[in-house]
Amino acid sequence: MTWEAYLDREQPRFIKELVDFVAIPSVSAIPANIPDVVRAADWVAARLTAAGAEHAQVLPTAGHPVVCADWLHAPDAPTVLIYGHFDVQPAEPFDLWTSPPFQPEIREGRLWGRGASDDKGGMLIPILAFEALVKTTGRLPVNVKFFFEGQEEIGSPDLPPFVAANTDLLKADMIFSADGLQWSPDVPMVVEGLKGLVSLEIIVKGPRSDQHSGLHGGGIANPGMALGQILASLKSVDGLVTVAGFYDDVRPLTEADREAIARIPYDEAAYLAETGAPAPFGEPGYTRRERLWARPTLDVNGLTSGWQGAGTKTVLPVEAKAKINCRLVADQSPERVFDLIAAHVAAHAPPGVTAEVTRNPGRADPFLLPSGHNATGLAAQVLTEVYGRAPYRTRLGGSIPVMTTLLEHLGLHAVMFGFSHDDENLHAPNEFFRLDVFRKGQTAYGRLLERLGA
Amino acid sequence: MTWEAYLDREQPRFIKELVDFVAIPSVSAIPANIPDVVRAADWVAARLTAAGAEHAQVLPTAGHPVVCADWLHAPDAPTVLIYGHFDVQPAEPFDLWTSPPFQPEIREGRLWGRGASDDKGGMLIPILAFEALVKTTGRLPVNVKFFFEGQEEIGSPDLPPFVAANTDLLKADMIFSADGLQWSPDVPMVVEGLKGLVSLEIIVKGPRSDQHSGLHGGGIANPGMALGQILASLKSVDGLVTVAGFYDDVRPLTEADREAIARIPYDEAAYLAETGAPAPFGEPGYTRRERLWARPTLDVNGLTSGWQGAGTKTVLPVEAKAKINCRLVADQSPERVFDLIAAHVAAHAPPGVTAEVTRNPGRADPFLLPSGHNATGLAAQVLTEVYGRAPYRTRLGGSIPVMTTLLEHLGLHAVMFGFSHDDENLHAPNEFFRLDVFRKGQTAYGRLLERLGA
Repeated sequence: MTWEAYLDREQPRFIKELVDFVAIPSVSAIPANIPDVVRAADWVAARLTAAGAEHAQVLPTAGHPVVCADWLHAPDAPTVLIYGHFDVQPAEPFDLWTSPPFQPEIREGRLWGRGASDDKGGMLIPILAFEALVKTTGRLPVNVKFFFEGQEEIGSPDLPPFVAANTDLLKADMIFSADGLQWSPDVPMVVEGLKGLVSLEIIVKGPRSDQHSGLHGGGIANPGMALGQILASLKSVDGLVTVAGFYDDVRPLTEADREAIARIPYDEAAYLAETGAPAPFGEPGYTRRERLWARPTLDVNGLTSGWQGAGTKTVLPVEAKAKINCRLVADQSPERVFDLIAAHVAAHAPPGVTAEVTRNPGRADPFLLPSGHNATGLAAQVLTEVYGRAPYRTRLGGSIPVMTTLLEHLGLHAVMFGFSHDDENLHAPNEFFRLDVFRKGQTAYGRLLERLGA
Repeated sequence: MTWEAYLDREQPRFIKELVDFVAIPSVSAIPANIPDVVRAADWVAARLTAAGAEHAQVLPTAGHPVVCADWLHAPDAPTVLIYGHFDVQPAEPFDLWTSPPFQPEIREGRLWGRGASDDKGGMLIPILAFEALVKTTGRLPVNVKFFFEGQEEIGSPDLPPFVAANTDLLKADMIFSADGLQWSPDVPMVVEGLKGLVSLEIIVKGPRSDQHSGLHGGGIANPGMALGQILASLKSVDGLVTVAGFYDDVRPLTEADREAIARIPYDEAAYLAETGAPAPFGEPGYTRRERLWARPTLDVNGLTSGWQGAGTKTVLPVEAKAKINCRLVADQSPERVFDLIAAHVAAHAPPGVTAEVTRNPGRADPFLLPSGHNATGLAAQVLTEVYGRAPYRTRLGGSIPVMTTLLEHLGLHAVMFGFSHDDENLHAPNEFFRLDVFRKGQTAYGRLLERLGA
């Protein structure tokens, strides 16, 4: 029997197993659910063993456990590490779910339940493909390591020290993440870049306490106005960041990059309708998609000063604060961008106030696959075969800290090879996973493992 | 007996009466104290009758009552209206008072208690001077009307309709306010101007809800940043308001005005130390005192946008708001300044957002005594005699709505002729009134009444 035939034959069982897996409320954000996260880890370890993996073990971190397993019987072949996560987002508000989030239900060819798409369906796919190959051929053409974690949905706070302390256990030649998206059920994509992140706060101080605007207006500087002037000095009204040196380390888009992005269909009106923004906006000289994917940003996240209640309070506020984040692209560094902004604010603070810039939590290095990256090329070939068309080459404006953790400690750019879609209510009520794509993903992972050994 | 001798003889009784008056907790801001405000009104009406005034009556408004009385037996002499208020600020926090706020105590030649200075001591002074003249001479050289209100400390919301409906009752040739300050116990002043006020809010809107700064940063405009840019367009970093037309209606300071202001001693370091402001600041071309007293201002009172809690939330906020007030000088109009700012914001809103400007509560016309104003000249002469030196000609940066109400409905610029000082903890714990100044004020009002009839 071919491994593809095995997948077809076993699909009803696999779907039933996914139902069992999704039924475990492994919500990492809720302390009361920690036993469920551990139960999910145990389930994953047992499932790996059943699939034919060896050394399946649940390992502790400072927080939620991780699960590791391997199959290392392909001498002279490369070793591939497959990543995913078995924890899920909270399911609240429960009353918005059509069927209960932890009583998975199949309707319309989809499995509905919290974590079905993110990432329980996704991380089960490579295990099932692995099983099909091992059970039908008795062997694999490549060495495989599995590495699944239990705190991705809270930002993997304990993962960096775990990875740093276990580089031998995790060491591989390539990494594929089973947590990832495709463009649509019919169109594959390869995500080549993620943005980095730096978060900071600008704090402008004036008088020692709120002052009467009649007694002191015109006499002393106003921190709220000064903050507005500082913000305006950071960015032009047409969207260019005006901090000296901000763009210095940005790797320019090549013509090939721009052509690849331009080939992807894009509906400006639909984008505006989705966000509700009243008009197009952004850095001159780039398409919106180029800006969203490959240009750094500087955004205000919040403003606080003085009187915020109803009506009027005629004060000169004691201080004014702005929370800001920058999304960074290769080869910008969070630390260097922070230093540039701090220096800019020091140079542009208006007279009569003091201005200070502090780092806030939230940091990630930008991530960009090297051009000609071997694992990416393999992934693209497999996706082209399985989908019958070449994948879009895309990037994401967000940050995935685990990708930079793996790069930092294992020296490898992970390739996202996952089969979720952004319409599947990943962090919302009524999350679902497409069962036909569940099956297609298994074929894709099977072919990937075959090709890795070729 | 001269009226001055009468004042000397009766001073112990007058002080005892002030103690009784201050003991009434007539806090207008606290609904539970409304019966006390009414009790204070009754006390005032009885005291006016005892002093020799006629037609003393407690009259209702939509809120707290007012008290009116008169003495109109000087045919062919002018009529003077004397204003003051018998309500007081809340006394909280009680534990910061050395002696209880409504159990007045005399220490160090001062009477300590809530309202002793603002304005019970102040409004009792003209009643006592009136009594001394009537009791010793049997008559007055001038017609007098008394008009005391019970809601000054909450902004006199019901006074404008009362005054509008009672112009015959209140009609006079001059108005003096017994609610007012002197420069120091040794140096008198005449307040020639008050600033007006207009309050507004700028509301900048972008997407229909908070958006992920990774998914949409660079794709749509940021309301927080746009608000900063709008604020920066309103005012230069050196303090000049850059709204077109803002200064058009400002009456320029004359050389005489500037010389009068420059004659008043001023300590820049003490001013900075008082406010805690880190450095001098303000509109170029004017001294700080000129700016505080006679130049219009535009100040941020508060800012609100997006995430204001601890740490980081990487959102593009749905909106950003700034509360703003302008302190206005003659002959600016709150309505015209609002329109100018609204037009400026409409013209300067950056692309990609909408910006709206709304009026907030808080409105006052600027107030400036006409040069050569008769009542002011009389007040200055009396103060010069009583203090042995000419008064400073000053202005205030704040607004006193009742002054503009009296001007609007009675057509008269009231002259502030009061004897409090700004160190007397007027709205703070441990309010006090200087008893020697209480006595000096009685002499000043007696001489004023004499001179008005001359």
